[in-house]
Formats: sequence, C-alpha cells, structure tokens
Amino acid sequence: MQDSFTTRLSSRTAKLTSSAIRDILKVATQSHITSFAGGLPAPELFPVEALRAAADRVLVNDAKRALQYGATDGLAELREQIAADVSSAEAAACAAAGLAAPDPVDPDQVLVTTGSQQALDLICKLLIDPGDRLATENPSYLGALQAFRLFQPTFLTVEMDEDGALPASLELALGQGTKFAYLLPSFQNPTGRSMTVARRLAVMEVVKRSGTPLVEDDPYGALYFDKPCGPSLRSLAPEQTIALGTFSKTMAPGLRLGWAISPKEVHARLVQIKQSADLHTATLSQHVALELIRSGVMPAHLDLLRSVYAERCQAMLAALAAEFPPEVRFTRPAGGMFVWLELPAGVDASPLLHAAIEQEQVAFVPGGTFHPNGGGRNTMRLNFTHTSPEKIRDGVARLAKVVRRELAATPA
Amino acid sequence: MQDSFTTRLSSRTAKLTSSAIRDILKVATQSHITSFAGGLPAPELFPVEALRAAADRVLVNDAKRALQYGATDGLAELREQIAADVSSAEAAACAAAGLAAPDPVDPDQVLVTTGSQQALDLICKLLIDPGDRLATENPSYLGALQAFRLFQPTFLTVEMDEDGALPASLELALGQGTKFAYLLPSFQNPTGRSMTVARRLAVMEVVKRSGTPLVEDDPYGALYFDKPCGPSLRSLAPEQTIALGTFSKTMAPGLRLGWAISPKEVHARLVQIKQSADLHTATLSQHVALELIRSGVMPAHLDLLRSVYAERCQAMLAALAAEFPPEVRFTRPAGGMFVWLELPAGVDASPLLHAAIEQEQVAFVPGGTFHPNGGGRNTMRLNFTHTSPEKIRDGVARLAKVVRRELAATPA
Repeated sequence: MQDSFTTRLSSRTAKLTSSAIRDILKVATQSHITSFAGGLPAPELFPVEALRAAADRVLVNDAKRALQYGATDGLAELREQIAADVSSAEAAACAAAGLAAPDPVDPDQVLVTTGSQQALDLICKLLIDPGDRLATENPSYLGALQAFRLFQPTFLTVEMDEDGALPASLELALGQGTKFAYLLPSFQNPTGRSMTVARRLAVMEVVKRSGTPLVEDDPYGALYFDKPCGPSLRSLAPEQTIALGTFSKTMAPGLRLGWAISPKEVHARLVQIKQSADLHTATLSQHVALELIRSGVMPAHLDLLRSVYAERCQAMLAALAAEFPPEVRFTRPAGGMFVWLELPAGVDASPLLHAAIEQEQVAFVPGGTFHPNGGGRNTMRLNFTHTSPEKIRDGVARLAKVVRRELAATPA
Repeated sequence: MQDSFTTRLSSRTAKLTSSAIRDILKVATQSHITSFAGGLPAPELFPVEALRAAADRVLVNDAKRALQYGATDGLAELREQIAADVSSAEAAACAAAGLAAPDPVDPDQVLVTTGSQQALDLICKLLIDPGDRLATENPSYLGALQAFRLFQPTFLTVEMDEDGALPASLELALGQGTKFAYLLPSFQNPTGRSMTVARRLAVMEVVKRSGTPLVEDDPYGALYFDKPCGPSLRSLAPEQTIALGTFSKTMAPGLRLGWAISPKEVHARLVQIKQSADLHTATLSQHVALELIRSGVMPAHLDLLRSVYAERCQAMLAALAAEFPPEVRFTRPAGGMFVWLELPAGVDASPLLHAAIEQEQVAFVPGGTFHPNGGGRNTMRLNFTHTSPEKIRDGVARLAKVVRRELAATPA
C-alpha cells in the first residue's frame, strides 16, 4: 500500500506541499496565453545548426568517450575551457573597474554540474544542517529557495535597493554561524537589478569581515545589453566564494550544463557529494558544449542574444511606461531576463494572476513566492526574453487593463 | 579563507573521507593495466551510428523542444515508451513464471532521472532522516551505499546465498520502522547473483507482510545471456515498490538516463524533490534516447550485447576455473557484468590489489567496500564486459599468480 511510504516520510519532505501558483501557471503554457511567467530563453535563437554540427563531430570523432561514463568533476577539456573563459572575463571586468585581477581559475577548481541548480543542492549537502541560518536577497531566485528548503534552514533576508543587496542589511544577516550568503549580483532573478561596482566592493567588505562563505549565482551576467555589469564577487574574495555559472542561458537549457568554481578543498568535497547525486553530468552534453565553444560561434551568438533581448526589454519597459498607471513602479534592467513590478501596498498580485489569465489571457509570476519569509505580495515578475516585441506590447497592454481594474477595486 | 567553509560543514559531510581504494583504482585506468575493476560497458559496442542518426533527426525536426527547459518528470513520449516497454517485459516475465501480470505501468508513474544514481538520492531525501534504518543485501552496490551514507542511516544487512537475498535474513531486517529495503534481484552488483522465481516470491512475501517500502534496482536485467531471470519484484507488489531502471547499460552511460517507477503519490513527491535537484534531466539526451528506440535498432543491439557479454563471461569463468586455486570460490552469473570471488577466510583482498597492480598490471575491486557494515575482506569483484576474451584470459592468469603467492604466504 502507498501507506508504506506515507507513514515513513523524512522530516524534510513530510511538509512538502504542491505550489498553488505552479498549478495555475501550468495553464500559462497553453498557446493562447501570452506568458511573461517562465524564465525561458528564446528558442528561436538557439544555435541549432552549430549545435547539430558540433554533435555530429563529437559522434564521429570521439563517440566512445562522449558516450561512456566520465569523471565526476567533468570533462577535463571543458573544465579547462570554463576556467580560461571565466578568468579572462574576470580579468577584463577587474581592469575596467580599476581593480587588480584575482589569480586565474585553476581547472581543478571547476566542477561541471547538471545545470547550476544541481550546485545549489550540493552546496546545501555540504553545509546545511536543519535549523542552520542562510542569508539571501529578499526577494531571491525561487529555484534556489526550493533547493534550500529541503535542507530545513532558517532564512535571514537581505533587503535591496536599486543597486542590489544593502551592505548594512547583509551585515545583520551574517552574524556568527550563518552558513552562507547566497547572492545574485548581476541582473538578479527576480528583480533584474545589478550591483554597481561600488556596491560590489561594499558587499564584499562585509562578506570578508564576517568570514561567511558566499555563493555567487550568475546565470545572467553574459546577457548584458551594453556592457558587463562589474567584477564577479568571486574575484574580490576567491577563497571565500563558490561561484556558479551556466550554459543554460547562453547555449541551451536542455543540455543541463552548469558549473561551480570553488576553493580547491571545497571543490574536492563537492566532487564527492556529486558522485552520490548522479555520478557525473551527461558526457554527451559536455562534449557538445565544448565542441560548440571551439567552433568559435559563441561570441557572435552572444551578441545576437544581447541585441534581441535588449530590444524585447525595451519594448516591455516602453509598454509598461505607456500602459501602466503611474503608481506601479518597475525596474529598468540593463540585461538579464526579468522586469520587477511593485504595485501599491495592499494590492495582492496572486488574485490578479487569476484575473489576468482568465480575462486577458496573459500570465506572470506573483512576487510573494520569491520572498523566503513571506511579504512582497504586491510585487510581480515579468519575463521579456521568451516573447516577441509585438506580443510584449499587446500582452502588457492587456495586463495593464487587469491592473487598472484591480487598483480601482482596492481601497486606497 | 577556506576556513570559512571547513568550520561550517554539515554533520553529513564533516566525516566524508576520500576512498583509499578509489585512489588506487585511478591508476587502473592507465592503458598498460588490465582492469577488471570498473563497471563499464564495452564502448566498442555503443550504437554510435544509430545514435548519431538519432541526434541528427532530433536536431533537425524538434530542436526547439530538445534544447529548451523541459518538464521535471521527463519527456512525455519517453515516459510513455518506458511505461510500455516495462509493462510488456513484466507481462512476459510473469507469464513465463505462471503468474498474473500486474496492471500496466502508467506513464504518470515514470520519473526520468539523471541516471538511476539520481533516483537513489531522491529516495533518500523522501524517506531518510539521520539514524533511520534501511536494509540492503550484503554485499550491495557501492554507489548506492555512498548515496545512502550522506543521509546518515543505519544499515541492516541481508545475507545472501547463490539465489540472492535470504528471506529469513530479510525478515529480521524489516522490523518495525525500517524505512526501505534496497534489493538488486537480477545479476546483482557486485555478486552477479540472481533471485530464482521461487526466491522472488518468498522475498516479496516477506516484504508485503512487513509493509516496508522496497526499492528494486535493476540496471542489468536486460543483459541476460540465455533468458530473462524472472518477474520484477515490482510486479509482485507494485504499490509497495519503487523500481529503478537505466539506459546506461543498454544504450550508453554518457546520456545519464535512468527512471524510477513509483506509486502515483510517491511519484508526485519525487518529482517535487527532483525539481530542486536539477530541474529536469537533459532534454537532448531524452529526445535522442526516444528517437533511438523509435528507430527500431534496440532489439538487435541488445542481442549483440548479450552474445558478446556472454562470451566474455564464459572466457572469465573458464580462466578462473583453469588458473585459480580450487579454494577460491566464484559465482557463475547468467547475465550482467560481474563475477564475485571469495578467497579463503583470513586472506585480505586489499593488499592483494596493490600487488596485482604493481606486479602483474591487473586490477579489480576488493569486496570489503561493498559491505555496508564491514566484513567481506576476503572477497573481490571482477568485471568482464569491458575487456576482450583474450585480455580476460591473460589478465585472469596474471591475477591467479598474485593470488597463489598471497595464499602461499597466508598462514592456514
């Protein structure tokens, strides 16, 4: 009987509940809905022909390796490539900010993960016991919060302004014993905000002073519209940081390829933990990604992504400015995938989602879900990368109608 | 400083140690070593051309889906394919044993996992709190023991005879509160033993009487030499079983594709847990595997694997019979990938591994490591799938020299 299982659940899963919002948003995948809800890259921009050629070369030239079990830490050549690419990006960003570059990343610090989501799970296994404290921006990436919750931590929330996490709020959260801080400094999910160079320096002063480990998640940094948004936090305290990156937003999420760059002793433990989780990440994906990079298409591909996403973001910001009532505030991202909206206090975005889907066939994610300790019910996240400018303009106009009706119905 | 991390380790990882045997076996991957150590399929048998054609068709016909984020439970068409294939194999095995077949597997019971290794991690998250008891065969699959250990269980060991787990020993282990039993009924890793139909029925009587959840791991069942080795344990108690399968041994491990078939309520919770672990398994791998199955090549490919592996196993058994001293006992598998050796009591296979590598350039895995609570130091596991018959004959003869020297030096 299924009772065999349900009477034996672990304490971490006994309280798992299905997300009401997730259930609603399943509707949003239907084709008549304009969805600003997901965090999906534009599939029409996937470098399909280059990937197809890369996959074919891999299976012609190196099939036995690409199909066999592989090393837990990842394909050596891919780890070398990631180390070199991250090192040169860090050196350039530090130089642009007038800072000294850190030591180059050693390939033996690079762990290839099954998407950067997996790295979050591995890091929790490494560090978190039930009841431990961890610090996140408020709001923060929902997938991280879900991964963290399985390990039963207490969340200490770090408040933000337009430049990201506030150093004074971070300092309060990094008291004695906080296991780690989790920050997204560049085009943050869900807010689209980025830390300025000055903010990065101030944040890292706090991190270094407290001695708290930092997990820097940077899935969007390469998706800047005009220029990179600053040195990685890792480059300001490499011995204290695990830096996460991913090919999901720059190549394709279906490869499930991310990475974690850690101090070497930390890396060695993460490798052991990953071995138990899935032995290693798909070798075929790793070989194809390496071959794609070596083919030389990535710089032009990234330029394409940046210009198309910049145009879509611009379309969304212009439509929000034109259609939305002035009391709704929104961020103006310089890259990434999301715009963050703040409705007047007292307005709840969750019933607004129901109305938006039913009345206007448009979807978004209510912002409350991104707040680890509750709050933020008057916020909402809109994605601009997965929808054409025309549909963005039309969808934002329809969403504005719902918002205006809701504001009219809400007592001031 | 790295102290930031090392002073903050979780209780589950603070005691993680590097495996001495793993370090030794890194040497065994060098080309001058004949290695019977790994559990690798024969790469020269990978269906490379069929996979290449399948990958190309996927990237021509369905690239946007195959490269995008996907559903956490897996590609719907692949789940349908797995459900249909498992159902027909179970129906055939039950008919051959004169038993009623279970209800067909519903695709909504199938969770695609990143190798079946991942399913072990998910199941522990679902069920295990520190100190909980779980039951495994003694010896059992090392990768499972490693995955389980991260969740700090207590192991209750089930003794085996030539027909697999002993029902009386299993009954002792399934006392009140044991969270689950983990069994490999078919060509077990590490012993190569399979449960007879009668043993399967007796084991499942015990499982059903106790009400304990069962995790049935079956990576090798399709690799029989003459005939399938019996109905799945799942088919004898579907509501009480999570059944794990994999394409790693039949297609290619580098795809990292496995599955878990569970009762529906259990499935729903595993999906939630998997979402935190890696969002979903690589969509490209899933599409390629589905396309490979649909191309129709798998039946002939499985026949090829069975005949080549049967020949290699036969070569190993013949060489063991011819070269090894009669006091060394070994199993005679009817499928799978491993032969299990038992040296006279008092002989330790770990120093023998050092001698084998250094003196005779041949490697194996000492059996102690497969015993969750210690013991079995006089046992060893040999893999026969990754080495040609000629090299098997030569390697076994060299290994026999080391064994004879060790036996001569060991006081009786």
